Amino acid sequence: MSTNYQIILAEWIVTVNPEFEVLTDYAIVIKDSHIHDLLPTTDINYLEYYQQADVFDLPNHVIMPGLVNSHTHASMSLLRGLGDDLPLMEWLNDHIWPAEGRWVNTEFVRNGFELAAAEMMRSGTTCFNDMYFYPDTVAQHSQQIGLRAVVGLIVLDFPTAWAKDADDYLHKALAVYDEIKASPLVTAAFAPHAPYTVSDSPLERIAMYSNELDMPVHMHIHETAFEVAEAEKNTGMRPLQRLDQLNLLNPNLIAVHMTELNEFEIERIAEAGVHVSHCPESNLKLASGLCPVAELQNSNINICLGTDGAASNNDLDMFAEMRTATLLAKGVSGDARNCSARQAIEMATINGARALGLGNDIGSIEAGKQADIIALDFTALNTQPTYDPVTQVVYACNSRQVSHVWIAGNCQLADFQLCNIDEDKIRHQTQSWRSKIASTDKESA
Amino acid sequence: MSTNYQIILAEWIVTVNPEFEVLTDYAIVIKDSHIHDLLPTTDINYLEYYQQADVFDLPNHVIMPGLVNSHTHASMSLLRGLGDDLPLMEWLNDHIWPAEGRWVNTEFVRNGFELAAAEMMRSGTTCFNDMYFYPDTVAQHSQQIGLRAVVGLIVLDFPTAWAKDADDYLHKALAVYDEIKASPLVTAAFAPHAPYTVSDSPLERIAMYSNELDMPVHMHIHETAFEVAEAEKNTGMRPLQRLDQLNLLNPNLIAVHMTELNEFEIERIAEAGVHVSHCPESNLKLASGLCPVAELQNSNINICLGTDGAASNNDLDMFAEMRTATLLAKGVSGDARNCSARQAIEMATINGARALGLGNDIGSIEAGKQADIIALDFTALNTQPTYDPVTQVVYACNSRQVSHVWIAGNCQLADFQLCNIDEDKIRHQTQSWRSKIASTDKESA
Repeated sequence: MSTNYQIILAEWIVTVNPEFEVLTDYAIVIKDSHIHDLLPTTDINYLEYYQQADVFDLPNHVIMPGLVNSHTHASMSLLRGLGDDLPLMEWLNDHIWPAEGRWVNTEFVRNGFELAAAEMMRSGTTCFNDMYFYPDTVAQHSQQIGLRAVVGLIVLDFPTAWAKDADDYLHKALAVYDEIKASPLVTAAFAPHAPYTVSDSPLERIAMYSNELDMPVHMHIHETAFEVAEAEKNTGMRPLQRLDQLNLLNPNLIAVHMTELNEFEIERIAEAGVHVSHCPESNLKLASGLCPVAELQNSNINICLGTDGAASNNDLDMFAEMRTATLLAKGVSGDARNCSARQAIEMATINGARALGLGNDIGSIEAGKQADIIALDFTALNTQPTYDPVTQVVYACNSRQVSHVWIAGNCQLADFQLCNIDEDKIRHQTQSWRSKIASTDKESA
Repeated sequence: MSTNYQIILAEWIVTVNPEFEVLTDYAIVIKDSHIHDLLPTTDINYLEYYQQADVFDLPNHVIMPGLVNSHTHASMSLLRGLGDDLPLMEWLNDHIWPAEGRWVNTEFVRNGFELAAAEMMRSGTTCFNDMYFYPDTVAQHSQQIGLRAVVGLIVLDFPTAWAKDADDYLHKALAVYDEIKASPLVTAAFAPHAPYTVSDSPLERIAMYSNELDMPVHMHIHETAFEVAEAEKNTGMRPLQRLDQLNLLNPNLIAVHMTELNEFEIERIAEAGVHVSHCPESNLKLASGLCPVAELQNSNINICLGTDGAASNNDLDMFAEMRTATLLAKGVSGDARNCSARQAIEMATINGARALGLGNDIGSIEAGKQADIIALDFTALNTQPTYDPVTQVVYACNSRQVSHVWIAGNCQLADFQLCNIDEDKIRHQTQSWRSKIASTDKESA
């Protein structure tokens, strides 16, 4: 295979490197799957590889690292908008769980994933951390489409279409882990659903495997006050305390939601190096609670961002999520300086990469890293004028301004068109699922 | 002038009529500037006017009333992103007011308005309630472009480029009111800036004129706890109490922000018929406070939605504002049923129309009303599948899905292209202002 060079010429590059440098009139040189060099545009003509490279000349564009969605259930896109305006448990019991019980199979998971993958790529997400049934299907198709994925090896106590009991989930988890070991784009995380759906014994085994294999553990934790109160009633402990006893509080843990935290718990997770995946839109929409972002930031806890599934958001738009995260953190803390635009971008890129164990590979634009890169077209009037490209990305840019996407050096979106996905086919599949699912949902039939 | 018919054929029409009917496979017949009829698509071939009408066949589209932005400072779009991540008073004192003092003139106002008008039309806003200097300029150009406007006749105690003292502001206000009387698209509201910038005597005169002319009064009120505390210190009263004594609490008042309200005040404004313009993104971004939306709704107070200016938002996207409003109301009140998608749509349409005294003319799709209508292209994957078009509009639809816009029957956006605005000219003007303004701002120079 001959070497493949691509060069992106841009007005602004928001590198998200440790100094958070913003480079003006710079070029990014991509060599095969990785970032080879960053250099001023004026230098570029002198380089020999310029001759054979594919050149993307993007004036009036902001280039930044691809976004990392640190918590989603991609295939649930087929359930987008089912049972809106309801609280968490009613939404689950009356709509989501019945629909899943009736319809989830490998075809549902593949088609739901394809819908989500197209939406994610179009809106600048280049890596997602998934939690759902049939992770083998998601892994296979994500690799095939070219989207970077961390698939969640789901574990529950009760039977579903995917597995019959905790032992069976764990057995399948390890089989999927073995299957995808060689994949350059897909890695795996253990995904015990939540403290209230997984008992001690499988959690102990997950803690052990995670430690042995150095694998992330991806889990919903302290999503609502109700969850914490019920656990106290049933176990005499708050869920975090129980997880601590089970050896799960360590730098492999991605704790999702975390709306209920006392001072002691914040101190403990800071000390343990736990990552927090903050999903502000889902938390607001389901009225689950408010994650104390400013307090977590003050304790130097690594916070990343997730959309959650499209069934509780109802989109997979990380630009909207960045914006909601920063606005909410300011409003709730009463200090407009909190959770700056820079911090929101870090949460949506490098912090997510670190939480997923991919901090050395993705999350910033630096030589040597994988070329997971997006371009934003700032000629749109809603990003005019631009005084500061960093704040503009967060407070004014619409996800539809994502014009180009590269993942591991492959151009996946060029001039607003998906390169490797047939949108019409996805629309057709989705319509067909809509009819079936609506026919069994009590409100949308 | 011959009669001009247009017919829109759509999959879904979210009428926002009093029953909030959603019509499937219906047609809207527009005659000149108004909505002539609504009828099932199957009937349309039998109608004689179908022969000569312009037909817009929009399958997979949601049609809804044009959005009403009940609080903005359109021309401040030129200051978008100046001094982000700062609290209200620091942002005003160190960035916005110096820039305005140096640069605001009729050309600034016209060019800023043109930038805002293009952004508003593109994102489905067909009517805006403005507050800024040179309302005559905004009125003239809004009428010319074809955007429905309520221009704020601004009043302050202190001198600006527009007027030298309260008397001068009031004199100019009445002159502008006389000038625009005949305009079919533009009306006026008195716009005393805030309780802390306008003294009793001009406020008394505004109350009197508003009553005589039946004109709205558009005012920032109780934006922050600081404002209320300062007023208590300086006047011995909370601002609302003072405005009550000055006879301003009545159905002509559009009270903007209202983040600080006690139970007595909520009862009083409910009884007085005051309208509340809620600007959630601006309130969050400046950490101004949280408007108690659920409590206001429980008291049957008419709440409408505003983006505030692009300098504190930082866009004029009413879809994002609807979404933030409903998510925030659910999250803060702790009840996912609060502020439903239907209520969010009403806030952004009919409630805004009512607050502006235009409830009989716009805000819903009903025969006899003005044809202020927008179409949303739901073929986009982020709105697939659609179980309920109403919740989908609020929770999943991106403002970039606005494909068509009609204002008073004139097609202003067709197939995502602005019909009467030269975007390149606006970009060029904006770039030129950017250079000037950045050169005098201490951070963005």
